[in-house]
Amino acid sequence: MRSRRLAILAEGKLGVLTSKTAACIIRYQPERVACVIDSTRAGLGVEAALGFGGRIPVVASVGEAVRFSPDCLLVGIAPRGGALPEAWRRVVLDAIGAGLDIASGLHTMLGEDAEIRRAADAAGVTIWDIRKPIVPDGVSQGALRDRRGRVILTVGSDCSSGKMTVAYELVAFMKAQGIEAAFVPTGQTGVLLAGWGQAVDRVPGDFMARVIEDLTVQALTGSQVAVVEGQGSLIHPAYSGVTLAVLHGCWPDTMILCHQPSRIRIEDYDVTIPPLKELVAMYESACRPLFRSRVAAIGLNTYDLDEDRAAAEVARAEEETGLPTDDPVRWGSARICESLEVGP
Amino acid sequence: MRSRRLAILAEGKLGVLTSKTAACIIRYQPERVACVIDSTRAGLGVEAALGFGGRIPVVASVGEAVRFSPDCLLVGIAPRGGALPEAWRRVVLDAIGAGLDIASGLHTMLGEDAEIRRAADAAGVTIWDIRKPIVPDGVSQGALRDRRGRVILTVGSDCSSGKMTVAYELVAFMKAQGIEAAFVPTGQTGVLLAGWGQAVDRVPGDFMARVIEDLTVQALTGSQVAVVEGQGSLIHPAYSGVTLAVLHGCWPDTMILCHQPSRIRIEDYDVTIPPLKELVAMYESACRPLFRSRVAAIGLNTYDLDEDRAAAEVARAEEETGLPTDDPVRWGSARICESLEVGP
Repeated sequence: MRSRRLAILAEGKLGVLTSKTAACIIRYQPERVACVIDSTRAGLGVEAALGFGGRIPVVASVGEAVRFSPDCLLVGIAPRGGALPEAWRRVVLDAIGAGLDIASGLHTMLGEDAEIRRAADAAGVTIWDIRKPIVPDGVSQGALRDRRGRVILTVGSDCSSGKMTVAYELVAFMKAQGIEAAFVPTGQTGVLLAGWGQAVDRVPGDFMARVIEDLTVQALTGSQVAVVEGQGSLIHPAYSGVTLAVLHGCWPDTMILCHQPSRIRIEDYDVTIPPLKELVAMYESACRPLFRSRVAAIGLNTYDLDEDRAAAEVARAEEETGLPTDDPVRWGSARICESLEVGP
Repeated sequence: MRSRRLAILAEGKLGVLTSKTAACIIRYQPERVACVIDSTRAGLGVEAALGFGGRIPVVASVGEAVRFSPDCLLVGIAPRGGALPEAWRRVVLDAIGAGLDIASGLHTMLGEDAEIRRAADAAGVTIWDIRKPIVPDGVSQGALRDRRGRVILTVGSDCSSGKMTVAYELVAFMKAQGIEAAFVPTGQTGVLLAGWGQAVDRVPGDFMARVIEDLTVQALTGSQVAVVEGQGSLIHPAYSGVTLAVLHGCWPDTMILCHQPSRIRIEDYDVTIPPLKELVAMYESACRPLFRSRVAAIGLNTYDLDEDRAAAEVARAEEETGLPTDDPVRWGSARICESLEVGP
């Protein structure tokens, strides 16, 4: 699926956090994006909504999208819970009717939806349910305890705090330094970007850690450093279980804590995000009975702050935690990479 | 399925911990058990293997089992990972051939196995895959924050440390005291015993907390106290994600820590079980950013110790933690119940 030209459905939601999958593909692989479908922003460029993405057009419908020669519709929004809104069903069927393949990161498996399946078969197009889990033949074995190689995990104060982005940026930076590093994709956006991996949040509970273990082992086969994309947060009421499974599954020696400084509480829940120092202690404590791991750096997501405010937040986080802090999207990954003491 | 007479398959494994599901049904609902199938113990009574269960016969095969008029074969062993050993496939097919329904708590869905499905359809028998998940239409909402009623959760130092048993015993005791209490089943054995609930370890990661939330809300509809069966342990390398999802999903005000004193490490993993006091702190800390919860009592599983040694372990745990400690199977639930300050 990697080489496909995508029309990305982001209806009503095109934005850095509101359409995370769409935004990440546009940021890192713009050459794959033919256009974005969002009728509420049609006619504007992607740049106007995201602050990047250049001249990628935004259109109102599949009918308009086909003018830009996509060969695949990517459902690029991940609503809470992941189900298919009824309004999007029509768009998916239109895309199938126009001969496009479908890629979707929803929890609802489009390939198992009778109407969509029938339409796809009739049109001879394929459906890629990115989140479809592969259930392994057993549970985690703790195989990473005696590994060769480094495992670095991004962890977060919340969902959508920058875990995938920091991991992805870091691997790109390391590779540029001649370090054999591999990005380990554990969510639908990471899988889309990298063309391998598994969305662990769809895997049955007992097998989550094993899936992460397998992916990490695979990454270390060809690389000296595996940088695992973390999921959720230990303090997120809905997703914390996935977070802990990733943490215990990949057995990291080092963690990078990701946070958006402007966020005060977990969205949709009345949970206040604790001070970074407490979060660092929580993540380190959660590992301790199994293995030693330390948070080595803080990755901030300051996309919604001006330059001065962003710099002030970096200074504040360093002061509070005593850890090297940076926003890799804004200022690059050098500082965070240095804190990890990984050499080529 | 509740009223069925069961032939329980426990091949080669009949024992308190080695066939947990079988042992629990025999302990709490012996009237449902026609016989046990375990060719390595055929001819002995169940009592010889478990220390309870009286005259329930152990037989070598389905052919012998039918003499005791079962109407359902229960696959009563839960191997790590939960897959169907090939050797048991023959037994399941024999049972179907003999006209028995099938109940199974395996991760492998027997109803989705082509050969077994075909045989069941031909014989007109039903297959109950106890672990088959119902995926809710959204993720956890934190609905329990403002509930009426008490939520008590059993947590553990490891798998198979007594979480289900302590919860089940406690509810029975509370009911006998006139307290409106409900047992909330979250694993295959609990679901089998209670006839409702969900095996959360089979639910996709993102939905685990929601499933627990829904079950707890349902229990509190008719009761003033919900006693939720915990899963796994925060320090178990394979299952910790499920554990945290249950903890954050049911939003307990009180926890009971369950432990088997003779166990030093997590079986199959090189993880030493920390002192109880540290475990108490871990479970309380894991709740803190979301809600306040405290461990109010310790439930010990001393089935493999003699009376003196068991009493010594109870005293030791009380000394270490300062918390009321008891083995409810051996000495009843009065002491633990008292620590919870729940009245009729």
